[in-house]
Amino acid sequence: MRAARYIGGGRIEVGGAEPQRPGPGEVTIRVAYNGICGTDLHIVQGHMDARVAAPAVIGHEMSGVVDAVGDDVDTLEIGRPVTVMPLRWCGECASCRAGHQHICQRLDFVGVDSPGALQEQWTVPASLVVPLPEGVSLQHAALVEPLAVAVHDVRRSRLTAGETAVVIGGGPIGQLIAVVARAAGAEVVLAEPDAARRAFAEQQGAVVVDPAAEDLSAVVAERTAGAGADVVFEVAGTRGTALDATRHARTRGRVVFVAIHPEPVPVDLHRIFWRELEVLGARVYEREDFERAVGLLAEGAVPADALITRVVPLEETMTAFDALLSAAAMKILVDVQGVSR
Amino acid sequence: MRAARYIGGGRIEVGGAEPQRPGPGEVTIRVAYNGICGTDLHIVQGHMDARVAAPAVIGHEMSGVVDAVGDDVDTLEIGRPVTVMPLRWCGECASCRAGHQHICQRLDFVGVDSPGALQEQWTVPASLVVPLPEGVSLQHAALVEPLAVAVHDVRRSRLTAGETAVVIGGGPIGQLIAVVARAAGAEVVLAEPDAARRAFAEQQGAVVVDPAAEDLSAVVAERTAGAGADVVFEVAGTRGTALDATRHARTRGRVVFVAIHPEPVPVDLHRIFWRELEVLGARVYEREDFERAVGLLAEGAVPADALITRVVPLEETMTAFDALLSAAAMKILVDVQGVSR
Repeated sequence: MRAARYIGGGRIEVGGAEPQRPGPGEVTIRVAYNGICGTDLHIVQGHMDARVAAPAVIGHEMSGVVDAVGDDVDTLEIGRPVTVMPLRWCGECASCRAGHQHICQRLDFVGVDSPGALQEQWTVPASLVVPLPEGVSLQHAALVEPLAVAVHDVRRSRLTAGETAVVIGGGPIGQLIAVVARAAGAEVVLAEPDAARRAFAEQQGAVVVDPAAEDLSAVVAERTAGAGADVVFEVAGTRGTALDATRHARTRGRVVFVAIHPEPVPVDLHRIFWRELEVLGARVYEREDFERAVGLLAEGAVPADALITRVVPLEETMTAFDALLSAAAMKILVDVQGVSR
Repeated sequence: MRAARYIGGGRIEVGGAEPQRPGPGEVTIRVAYNGICGTDLHIVQGHMDARVAAPAVIGHEMSGVVDAVGDDVDTLEIGRPVTVMPLRWCGECASCRAGHQHICQRLDFVGVDSPGALQEQWTVPASLVVPLPEGVSLQHAALVEPLAVAVHDVRRSRLTAGETAVVIGGGPIGQLIAVVARAAGAEVVLAEPDAARRAFAEQQGAVVVDPAAEDLSAVVAERTAGAGADVVFEVAGTRGTALDATRHARTRGRVVFVAIHPEPVPVDLHRIFWRELEVLGARVYEREDFERAVGLLAEGAVPADALITRVVPLEETMTAFDALLSAAAMKILVDVQGVSR
């Protein structure tokens, strides 16, 4: 079989690999599609070499079909379309014991800390496998993982119907948060400097703001009778947006810092005090978020086709990375069984 | 009658004043004691001259006895011991309409934005007056206002019996938070560099840590089987403690920034994300916090005598400010009816 491997030096190489047979409790999946996310870009740029030792098969946004099951796996039949929730936890640390396994202190993020889905056959614990219902295509199912991130972010925010959410940043996760927030019955104001991304959000029913040309706070104030937004999602990840995010929330409003800031950044603690804001951290997802994401796709609530900018065959995985690094594409999928023509 | 006035230039002057008769809906209180808080120190140091125009009678931590009532006030009898919740709100702004009147966008903090209690007779709206039960002395009742701050902070944190709270900073508010947290059934770890303040907290049942000599995180880890604290209160107000506060909280733990940071300071957003922390702003108090504070004093749950370092007569108000600025005293009360001997 073939696998795409990060080999260091900013490169992905596609070559042969030994398929692994499923052991007890394991499932081998014939991978169909694998989406590329920001973390994958960081890995290939070498930013995570301390955590990901080349050569490494990465990829964790995937769909596929069950190809073989271990002896004791009786809940997944061969041929079943599936996706994988790529988290393995220890079950023993303080976070796991408290029921927050997705924040396990020894979490194995599969596709980062252990081999991922950019290979034709992928063997994983059966407990990670999430079956797909009819009506969710394998291409769309490659969006379940990032969509589950958005579902988790929105769930952490306790956003309810009729509330107003501000989404700062219109990349893939920002757009998915906007979609999930709209599906929850909220009004969405999305701030994004890129015109194409604004147009995308507007088509999904968001009010859009170009932060270079308009004052986001003024727009939010106008739409909320001066109160401010119920929830703010900071997805852009700049120092400026982190500092600014708290300005847009109403008294007792919630602010979710979705973007990852590796280093401490200035935060307006005075505003948090002054309006009794609530700042919430949100990390990956739980099983219910994954299942809700599958459900949203099945209901047709997600503009999946529009989010998939392009599909490339496995041999061209590196071109997908190059394209994502050079332009504001949404999602590029790798057709893992596909071959270049 | 006499009043103590902030006259600018770092000075308080005591002189004569015209008593004001209570109008409709008002009550005149014969003020007994007035505590001095950090905000008062800021005012007298000139830090708040843009907000507080000299000459100004300040003071908002008080007790007294009803001396006269307006025509339509029938719920407060003359002679009744009382304290005052020093907040006046507009009732019309977005915060008020949402039920968060203590965060009114046009809040009048009485004693800061309008005349305060450092005068023998003080006339205020009857709606601000909180009657005292038997068994709460007038000296102790001057602690109700800062105690209500602590009650509000603890309530915002949702601290429950059996949980562990870290309090960073052992000044008056930190000590009161520790007292309220203990009364709620929580275990308290209090970090404070001053030995006398540590000793005070230890007498109240807290585990104390000298941050200069011990690693607070290690102490917290040891006492929580590696999990981290359920709640962290940042009361010290330094850049270092603001940055550090998030380190001590468990997965999904709550961090309350109690100290006021006028300027944005670096916050560890990565830790907030990594452990899905919840950061909560807390501002002054609501009526139920004030009443709970009165109740805690009545129950004898607060070491009130020990918290009152000293009582000075009205003429010596300035010496109280000088003492608080030069040494780590807890509470100094002004005996407003008292005269120098």
